[in-house]
Amino acid sequence: MPGRKFVFSFGRGKADGRAGDRVLLGGKGANLHEMTRLGLPVPPGFTISTDVCDYFYRHLKTYPVSLKKEVSRALAKLERVMDLQLGNPERPLLVSVRSGARASMPGMMDTILNLGMNDAVAESLSLRLNDERFVYDSYRRLIAMYADVVLGLDKNIFEEALEKLKRERGVTRDSQLTAPAYKTLTAQFKSLVRRHTQREFPQDSQEQLWGAMGAVFGSWMNPRAITYRKLNRIPESWGTAVNVQAMVFGNRGGASATGVAFTRDPSTGKKRFFGEFLPNAQGEDVVAGIRTPQPINQQSKNGSNGHSPTLENLMPKAYAELVKIRSLLENHYRDMQDIEFTIQEGTLYLLQCRNGKRTAAAAIKIAVDMAHEGLITKEESLQRVTPAQFEQLLHPRLDTQAKKNVVARGLPASPGAACGQIVFDPTTAFEWSQNLKRRVILVRPETSPEDIHGMHAAEGILTARGGMTSHAAVVARGMGKCCVAGCNDLTVSLNHREMVLGGRVFKEGDYLTLDGGTGEIMTGAVATIEPSLTKDIEEFLSWADQIRALRIRANADTPHDARIARTFGAEGIGLCRTEHMFFDSDRIDTVREMILADDPEGRQRALEKIMPMQKKDFMGIFREMKGLPVTIRLLDPPLHEFLPQKEEEIRRLAAKIGIPEEKLRRKAESLKEFNPMLGHRGCRLGISFPDIYIVQVRAVMEAACELIRDEGIDLFPEIMIPLVAHEKELKIIKDYIEQENKAVLARYKVHIPYTIGTMIELPRAALTADQIARHAEFFSFGTNDLTQTAYGLSRDDSAVFLDSYQERGIFDKDPFVTLDQEGVGSLINTACRLGRLTRPTIKHGNCGEHGGDPDTIAFCPNKGHHYVSCSPIRDPIARLAAAHAALASKKLKILLNQKSPARRRLKNNGQMTARRNNILTG
Amino acid sequence: MPGRKFVFSFGRGKADGRAGDRVLLGGKGANLHEMTRLGLPVPPGFTISTDVCDYFYRHLKTYPVSLKKEVSRALAKLERVMDLQLGNPERPLLVSVRSGARASMPGMMDTILNLGMNDAVAESLSLRLNDERFVYDSYRRLIAMYADVVLGLDKNIFEEALEKLKRERGVTRDSQLTAPAYKTLTAQFKSLVRRHTQREFPQDSQEQLWGAMGAVFGSWMNPRAITYRKLNRIPESWGTAVNVQAMVFGNRGGASATGVAFTRDPSTGKKRFFGEFLPNAQGEDVVAGIRTPQPINQQSKNGSNGHSPTLENLMPKAYAELVKIRSLLENHYRDMQDIEFTIQEGTLYLLQCRNGKRTAAAAIKIAVDMAHEGLITKEESLQRVTPAQFEQLLHPRLDTQAKKNVVARGLPASPGAACGQIVFDPTTAFEWSQNLKRRVILVRPETSPEDIHGMHAAEGILTARGGMTSHAAVVARGMGKCCVAGCNDLTVSLNHREMVLGGRVFKEGDYLTLDGGTGEIMTGAVATIEPSLTKDIEEFLSWADQIRALRIRANADTPHDARIARTFGAEGIGLCRTEHMFFDSDRIDTVREMILADDPEGRQRALEKIMPMQKKDFMGIFREMKGLPVTIRLLDPPLHEFLPQKEEEIRRLAAKIGIPEEKLRRKAESLKEFNPMLGHRGCRLGISFPDIYIVQVRAVMEAACELIRDEGIDLFPEIMIPLVAHEKELKIIKDYIEQENKAVLARYKVHIPYTIGTMIELPRAALTADQIARHAEFFSFGTNDLTQTAYGLSRDDSAVFLDSYQERGIFDKDPFVTLDQEGVGSLINTACRLGRLTRPTIKHGNCGEHGGDPDTIAFCPNKGHHYVSCSPIRDPIARLAAAHAALASKKLKILLNQKSPARRRLKNNGQMTARRNNILTG
Repeated sequence: MPGRKFVFSFGRGKADGRAGDRVLLGGKGANLHEMTRLGLPVPPGFTISTDVCDYFYRHLKTYPVSLKKEVSRALAKLERVMDLQLGNPERPLLVSVRSGARASMPGMMDTILNLGMNDAVAESLSLRLNDERFVYDSYRRLIAMYADVVLGLDKNIFEEALEKLKRERGVTRDSQLTAPAYKTLTAQFKSLVRRHTQREFPQDSQEQLWGAMGAVFGSWMNPRAITYRKLNRIPESWGTAVNVQAMVFGNRGGASATGVAFTRDPSTGKKRFFGEFLPNAQGEDVVAGIRTPQPINQQSKNGSNGHSPTLENLMPKAYAELVKIRSLLENHYRDMQDIEFTIQEGTLYLLQCRNGKRTAAAAIKIAVDMAHEGLITKEESLQRVTPAQFEQLLHPRLDTQAKKNVVARGLPASPGAACGQIVFDPTTAFEWSQNLKRRVILVRPETSPEDIHGMHAAEGILTARGGMTSHAAVVARGMGKCCVAGCNDLTVSLNHREMVLGGRVFKEGDYLTLDGGTGEIMTGAVATIEPSLTKDIEEFLSWADQIRALRIRANADTPHDARIARTFGAEGIGLCRTEHMFFDSDRIDTVREMILADDPEGRQRALEKIMPMQKKDFMGIFREMKGLPVTIRLLDPPLHEFLPQKEEEIRRLAAKIGIPEEKLRRKAESLKEFNPMLGHRGCRLGISFPDIYIVQVRAVMEAACELIRDEGIDLFPEIMIPLVAHEKELKIIKDYIEQENKAVLARYKVHIPYTIGTMIELPRAALTADQIARHAEFFSFGTNDLTQTAYGLSRDDSAVFLDSYQERGIFDKDPFVTLDQEGVGSLINTACRLGRLTRPTIKHGNCGEHGGDPDTIAFCPNKGHHYVSCSPIRDPIARLAAAHAALASKKLKILLNQKSPARRRLKNNGQMTARRNNILTG
Repeated sequence: MPGRKFVFSFGRGKADGRAGDRVLLGGKGANLHEMTRLGLPVPPGFTISTDVCDYFYRHLKTYPVSLKKEVSRALAKLERVMDLQLGNPERPLLVSVRSGARASMPGMMDTILNLGMNDAVAESLSLRLNDERFVYDSYRRLIAMYADVVLGLDKNIFEEALEKLKRERGVTRDSQLTAPAYKTLTAQFKSLVRRHTQREFPQDSQEQLWGAMGAVFGSWMNPRAITYRKLNRIPESWGTAVNVQAMVFGNRGGASATGVAFTRDPSTGKKRFFGEFLPNAQGEDVVAGIRTPQPINQQSKNGSNGHSPTLENLMPKAYAELVKIRSLLENHYRDMQDIEFTIQEGTLYLLQCRNGKRTAAAAIKIAVDMAHEGLITKEESLQRVTPAQFEQLLHPRLDTQAKKNVVARGLPASPGAACGQIVFDPTTAFEWSQNLKRRVILVRPETSPEDIHGMHAAEGILTARGGMTSHAAVVARGMGKCCVAGCNDLTVSLNHREMVLGGRVFKEGDYLTLDGGTGEIMTGAVATIEPSLTKDIEEFLSWADQIRALRIRANADTPHDARIARTFGAEGIGLCRTEHMFFDSDRIDTVREMILADDPEGRQRALEKIMPMQKKDFMGIFREMKGLPVTIRLLDPPLHEFLPQKEEEIRRLAAKIGIPEEKLRRKAESLKEFNPMLGHRGCRLGISFPDIYIVQVRAVMEAACELIRDEGIDLFPEIMIPLVAHEKELKIIKDYIEQENKAVLARYKVHIPYTIGTMIELPRAALTADQIARHAEFFSFGTNDLTQTAYGLSRDDSAVFLDSYQERGIFDKDPFVTLDQEGVGSLINTACRLGRLTRPTIKHGNCGEHGGDPDTIAFCPNKGHHYVSCSPIRDPIARLAAAHAALASKKLKILLNQKSPARRRLKNNGQMTARRNNILTG
């Protein structure tokens, strides 16, 4: 890197860098430079760029040749500005050395303070400042921090020495220690270093400086940092910068202090200045939490610090300056800022500012308020809240104040929190909830469609088996219900009505709390907080609605779900699963009668009983969704799912419908499949038993006709055929459906703007979508099954290895959560293009679980999707994600119209992948 | 159709048409014209073209306006030539009216003879010929045939009348009836027509003629014809022609006769003139089989007709002429001909000639002989035998002479025939076969890998469940063993050691015979004939080998299979399934120990025991396949397949390896999957348990090293990773395999030209083949799983509806038998192209069951496949099919280089599908 500059100075109003230089200087560094430029009181210093970190790891942990000289020059400049000199006992410069990556990175070496201190400096400084206690306190801190992060010693040995000293001196708090005590401690710390490293603590401040720098760069690759980056998708290539800055001291007596402030309330988002400080302390004391910090002002008071004097009272001048800086920084950065400050003998210094972390609720409030204030545009406002943050708002959640005792962990299958008494079967769940008004948690080895009533009744669901998209997970998300699935530490013993969880035995009725957002399982009842769509959220989402192009629908199977969907902003139902209607306890036996019928006549008799029930459902749904489209999927699951499995249930049913038990057992046996996912289901049922689909369609059409005739409601039924693999399947079914429809319409003499379409959920359907489009007015991508078949991966069986696949980086993300763009995405791409070839106006959307996933939504507009459909509870998230997608594509367009390096990069990438895409998609 | 000619005359050496006009004149018509042109004695007549049939169905069963005139003109010409007149009692012309489609079509109206006969003609003709018996015999035949095919009466009523008359006259045979009797019969037949139609039998010969023509055209659409066309893939659009031809009579006394001859022996193919005749008879008598036909010559004699005089003896002149015609026709048509002839009072007439049907053995013999004779080229010779015919030669088959009592039917899952005593579990099968030397048929509800030893021991396998590619079917085909699968009429009661089949109860030990080629299940032991590769077949296949470009490999898992594969011409092993080695009874428990191990160490201990066994297997296979490549697939099936299911087996195993039964049960339970096909299998095991793959690879490499070192054998191991969905899976596994390989090679200090590649058997793998090709030196398409996943269709569960799918034309062919080109084929296409993008030299082949299917093989060269691999027994078929594919592509190339309508058609088709393909494959 000849001629490249590695070290960037800041101080006294001038800085080599600025806020935009995050990539080069790291977040902390860039903001130090920026604040310096703004004329704010930042202690001067210099930043060693991330390029050095990059070089360090590419060159066997050595530095660029020119670095030494650049650091010397920058240090000399700093010494000049401060009129002090590093290591010079007469005029000693003390500095802090801090890491600073592009993104905040806990787990890395963070800070070494008081660097430059040594025996000579301490001695001379004690004399000059006449504050031996302060000096040796600072010195012993340096030794301990340096030993920990640079020399790799266990920091507990220093803690123990401190504790021992306090015991000996009969004191309990550090602040009670005297100057001689600190001096002794310093000597002890030095001897600890000597004993554990066989070397003296370095007295040479250059050695200290380079040691600290090396430790910062080295910490980029420590295991904790690597794990954190993996979890947070931070590229290794980013590297960290190092900031060397002149020390200021908040521990120089009563007129000194150190603190943290937020320009708005980070937990509510309210526009009030909020912060805490500690008088006579160094930064690490605030973090360490040894002393309770005091509020900076009246508004920052809370239960535990309400009695303490505020900064406003104690140091009104410094506080006033801080208030001014608060406005200046917020207006400058146009976002809520988190500020670290130190007051040294009455003078305010800023040590850091950055966009403040905030709760989801605060994020919305701040985004909306700032847009109203004109500080940011509505578009910027939308981009200030991530869908993931947004999600937190939509589920009951654990009270963060409450104590929790985590006993085991499973997959965070459906977010939210739930607590209740555990039960092990759906009937007990139903009875306890309905009759005894108890809150219950349903615990099952895994769930099946027969458990639905119990799942409905339960607060939350816990399973031992199944993945993120297992039956339990999918149904729970559909119900907006908390679920922790696939807990390997759980064994359920149904017979004994107990379970072993994390090595402990729990009996039916014991209390448990689930956190569906983390997968944590806690003993006892932990308090939860209910969700709500506030006025702020409504307004925020209305802005999203103005920007997004993608329509958002909901997957809803009942009038109740439909009503919820509308309140969450659904613009239609994208998937109404008719089979869920079949599982209702007052219908299931009729459905079973239909399945068990020996001949078409018997089947027809049962179907005629089911018809009015379905018709009533559809009327309810149409009424709720008036004016909006409703996509109704005809029967999809294999018939054996409807038959009873348990002996007692078999006996009951046989008696009720009057057939021999043995026959029932035989039928259930004969319907069993090796791979039900790939079995006799979907439109294959519609080919084998046309009467089922005909009756379903009749129910839809009669419901629609009667509503139009009697209530004058606008409605748009979309009849959807599932699991089509070959156009002829669709053609045969469409033909008989059309015939039935015509008959119904003729009978009622009304017109209904209905359409007939299909799911695209099998690779073959995607690959022959041009043929299928001959008979389909719309495509709805069933991305769950499409993912299962494209990957050859059962969502119910993959839990045992999917985790390790993600850990090992084989899958970046769970393909059942975020759509795999390369494989499944290319099938969708192909299907869309082929479909339009035959029918240019074909409508298409996505009704898989992925429909509610922001990363997937980001991908949908590229495919020209008209809508995505997801659980009602996820609709608000989808609305926001769709707005983000619209903004991203707008940004991309602008970028492509500019002559910029970014555009060049995009174009090059484009050419590189063009040949590939050519093969895949033409 | 203005100006189009519909009627084509032939007679007296001149003909409007020729052999090449099959499309227009039908097969029979075209050959009548051709034979006339050749100067052969064909009774004159005319052909009404297939265009008329087409017109007939497009215009509400009416004829083109000009037809009447054309028929009149052709009839007038015929009358002129014959110097007779239709319907003229003085000089009556009698004609036959016959259908004649492009392909022979049983099920259609075939023939009306003696048309033109009526009361007046009969009377006058009786006088003139002085043969009242002949005349009224002819008349009554006309009435009966006409009533049947034109008037739609039940022909049995005429049969009954005839039988009644014979009883009255006290005779048993038609030939014993006198002239007055036939006269009476004629009157009775006429009154039957009157009674059943309320109309007189038409006396007008024009009415007769047009009635007969209408009946022929009408019969094109009768249900039997429609069914036949469907089964034989004959397009409806082809239509039939009608042949009207002057009658000649084989029933004019002792110097008259009628017969059928083949230019070579149709059952052996030997070059000898072969035929049968009946003196004094009309054609239908030969077909009806009322009298035993006599041999035309010495060579045609057999057991039942050996005593009868030959045509050669009875009518030497006519026979000599026939012999001349035999050579002439065979040389002219360059194929074995089936000739129908009639001798009227010493004069020979030819009524039909066509390529003769023949047995598979005869087809080969004739094709080889004709090539040797120089009559046809080797290429033509190869095209004379279809792969389907060829298949018949490779399995034991039922003796066609034997009587059979079919009790039920299942799917013809694996061809061949088998008979033996039924047993219901694999252990009994093994014991009866091994110890008691009995031939057994294994009958199971369905089979599983645990049944392998019983399947090996059995002659044939019968299952109640599972489709054409169920476990039973696939394994049976792999073993070249007869299998009838998915028999719905079968219920097995294991407890009672009996089964109900087709409503009858069978006990263990009862005899049953299976025909795996038809799916028939017969009671008792039906005699079978063993297959053999004759010298003719070997020679024939050597010609195929010269022409084909595609390499043929075999799927073989043992040295024994490998040896068979080589004798059947395999050029390598395309799929060696290592798990089949695991099922051996002396290993399975060690494998189970490995699965049940609690930790990697325990697993490692068990694996170390398995290693030498696998190594020995590989050495055996490499030795058999020396000089040829062997593709070894690492462990693929989910681990639960290896664990015992039965209680007794569980107890035994638990005791043997010393773990609690309960633990074994729990493990088996925990490994159970909802959809094992999409579960924890294939390379997913290699990711979870690298030690398994490492040990397998070590076994392969050590085996190879020792053979090279000790025996100097050339060998080419290809290590194949199954079920890859993502390139990273392959990369991780390849990395550790390479490491192991290097270690082994270093230890032995030898060089082995091994390669590492992957199965492409999941849609996602196909769609990201460019990424996967980074780590794969070859692709092997696993078309079984690729079909299952692309269709979302379990091959084990689809039997219940796949039949009806084919019947209803949803699937043209079973997609598990013949590769679906549109869906699965486009995935393969994409994968090949993407793969070559990354690695231009990548090798690819097909190792699915489809590898042995001729229609699939036809498709492989287009994809640039290097080889297909199939069951050893199917290798000869594959060799022939590959030669056919090479010839077809050669033909296509020639066609594309000519300016012809065919080329234009091809190009237009090409443009039409270009946009589609562009999207699919670039």
